Amino acid sequence: MGAVGRSHTAWQAGPVPGPVAPHADPATPRKNLMRSVVMYAPGDVRVEDRPEPRLLAPADAIIRLSATCICGSDLWPYRGADPVTEPLSMGHEYAGVVEDVGEDVAIIRPGQFVVGSFFASDNTCEICRAGYQTSCIHREVLGTSGAAQAERMRVPLADGTLVATPGLPPGDLVPSLLAASDVLGTGWFGAVAAEASPGKTVAVVGDGAVGLCAVLAAKQLGAERIIAMSRHPARQQLARDFGATDIVEERGEDGVARIKELTGGLGAHSVVEAVGTQESMMQAIGSTRPGGHIGYVGVLHDVQLPGEALFMAHVHLHGGPAPVRRFLPQLINLIWTRQIDPGRVFDLTLPLEKAAEGYQAMDERRATKVLLRP
Amino acid sequence: MGAVGRSHTAWQAGPVPGPVAPHADPATPRKNLMRSVVMYAPGDVRVEDRPEPRLLAPADAIIRLSATCICGSDLWPYRGADPVTEPLSMGHEYAGVVEDVGEDVAIIRPGQFVVGSFFASDNTCEICRAGYQTSCIHREVLGTSGAAQAERMRVPLADGTLVATPGLPPGDLVPSLLAASDVLGTGWFGAVAAEASPGKTVAVVGDGAVGLCAVLAAKQLGAERIIAMSRHPARQQLARDFGATDIVEERGEDGVARIKELTGGLGAHSVVEAVGTQESMMQAIGSTRPGGHIGYVGVLHDVQLPGEALFMAHVHLHGGPAPVRRFLPQLINLIWTRQIDPGRVFDLTLPLEKAAEGYQAMDERRATKVLLRP
Repeated sequence: MGAVGRSHTAWQAGPVPGPVAPHADPATPRKNLMRSVVMYAPGDVRVEDRPEPRLLAPADAIIRLSATCICGSDLWPYRGADPVTEPLSMGHEYAGVVEDVGEDVAIIRPGQFVVGSFFASDNTCEICRAGYQTSCIHREVLGTSGAAQAERMRVPLADGTLVATPGLPPGDLVPSLLAASDVLGTGWFGAVAAEASPGKTVAVVGDGAVGLCAVLAAKQLGAERIIAMSRHPARQQLARDFGATDIVEERGEDGVARIKELTGGLGAHSVVEAVGTQESMMQAIGSTRPGGHIGYVGVLHDVQLPGEALFMAHVHLHGGPAPVRRFLPQLINLIWTRQIDPGRVFDLTLPLEKAAEGYQAMDERRATKVLLRP
Repeated sequence: MGAVGRSHTAWQAGPVPGPVAPHADPATPRKNLMRSVVMYAPGDVRVEDRPEPRLLAPADAIIRLSATCICGSDLWPYRGADPVTEPLSMGHEYAGVVEDVGEDVAIIRPGQFVVGSFFASDNTCEICRAGYQTSCIHREVLGTSGAAQAERMRVPLADGTLVATPGLPPGDLVPSLLAASDVLGTGWFGAVAAEASPGKTVAVVGDGAVGLCAVLAAKQLGAERIIAMSRHPARQQLARDFGATDIVEERGEDGVARIKELTGGLGAHSVVEAVGTQESMMQAIGSTRPGGHIGYVGVLHDVQLPGEALFMAHVHLHGGPAPVRRFLPQLINLIWTRQIDPGRVFDLTLPLEKAAEGYQAMDERRATKVLLRP
């Protein structure tokens, strides 16, 4: 849901119904428990035994996670910027193997390797058919039993939500398939919303995993020139590898001036906003030429867009929770055929048991994006 | 520039350089003077002798106005909502006959009947070619010598700005051609920005001249269902005549609920915002389905769009100063062939000398839009 910016509370995985005693009575069978990441308080992330998810509705599926990861949005409660009033099951990015499906599930089968998005969607309602599955009239936030930083998870509306890969993937493709679940799909939506296409200059505000994936998407969509805004050497390099032709280190008004300078004074045709702050949104608006397009995928918190400036900017604005499901078949194909390698955004891989270390590494900016292996 | 909402100061016609003595010495030849509308203070509109405009640049044209009108935005200084620090020449909507052109003018010829927009544009720069003439890199606000509530006006960048009709129009077409200069072009841009098209439901927020013209535009663009939001019987009738299939009298949250009720709970595909207030923008956002399009043409003053609500609304937002020039050839053709009759938005016609009476009628809401005949 965006590697940067503040998580949307509605998307939090939700409270854990009741803690399970860490030292269960040996008489209690442990086979119905699994390891799961739970946040107890800011800075307090634990991996502990939780009840395994089970099918709750006929459209559900249970998947065994091959990989999951920590989202930039998970850092907000970790840093205390979002309140943690009760223990939270964490995680909304997932790829894994289907273990069981409810009786209404007709397309997804046990044994398939699947990728899904952070909102479950029926993929049949009018809004889904228009390509806005994250606003599906039956959408479900991945909740308690669907939290992804765990060994297993429940996915509602499985046929609408999950997309199966052509077969079991080789291990080296798993990080990229996991990226498709959120950061790639989100960056891709940003580039599509910004109408990146051949002949255009695309600027990307934000060098987190989503911004980097937006660079990759702009390249795939045929953009002529791609300007990555970043002051972080390793991310600049990855942006270049993903297709960036120019790097702008300046921010705010200076960043806008630099983009104008690079575009004959006019501004970029397309700008992807992948941060979600007041400054980054104003930077995106200022960097776009009149008639140009802004795709915004950074979750907007405490942002107020001034009407008059927006009116005079003459831009197109589109964004919101990325309907990753719309793009999944195409993204899986690009990954499967090794045309793109978005898994490179993961710069730290840890076993699920070391989730706390992963949170710390992202909090201290030692890692862009942490992959967890259950 | 929008029949409703508050005028943008940048678009004010600008201060008059120096008043001309009302009782000029009889020895002074009066043939270089013309009658012109000047606002001295809120509520104080006078028609008086002013110097006739003359060619100031080689790309200029001088036109003799056949008709001009009072804009809803002119009411803001009239009501004291915008300051009047010096006498202002008024008016930015115009249609008339070319009297003289500068030496660089190659397309527009004396004797032609022409229509233009409130910003002069070269129509050749990259921004103009993309269809955003109101953001032309050489744009000029119609200034002192270009104010339209007068007998004559100067139009800069004549070849880029003006569009000639196929011949001198019959008198009954003049009001519609005048409407094309602003309110029709603005409503049309709103409907285009909202992507009104066959099969879609279009809602229009605002029943001023621009909103009514947006209804007409949506109809021409093939919309299946057109919902006009109005509680004014005469405007409701004109909206129906222009193509509205439904009328919604409720406003704010009630208006949103009613639009949802009429659209299977989803919201309209396309919404035109033709007011420009916080309430009307939020009404437009709330009335649009996820993935839908909002075209906003009401000048946004004192409006702050809440980022989070916008993010979750999942809409497309586009608007700003309508690039009327983009649409003028098409609009003139539709009027010339009598396929549309936007001149019906003028419900009061007065001689230029009675401009003060026209301002008063609009201020007291006795008239929607006042046409002035010089």
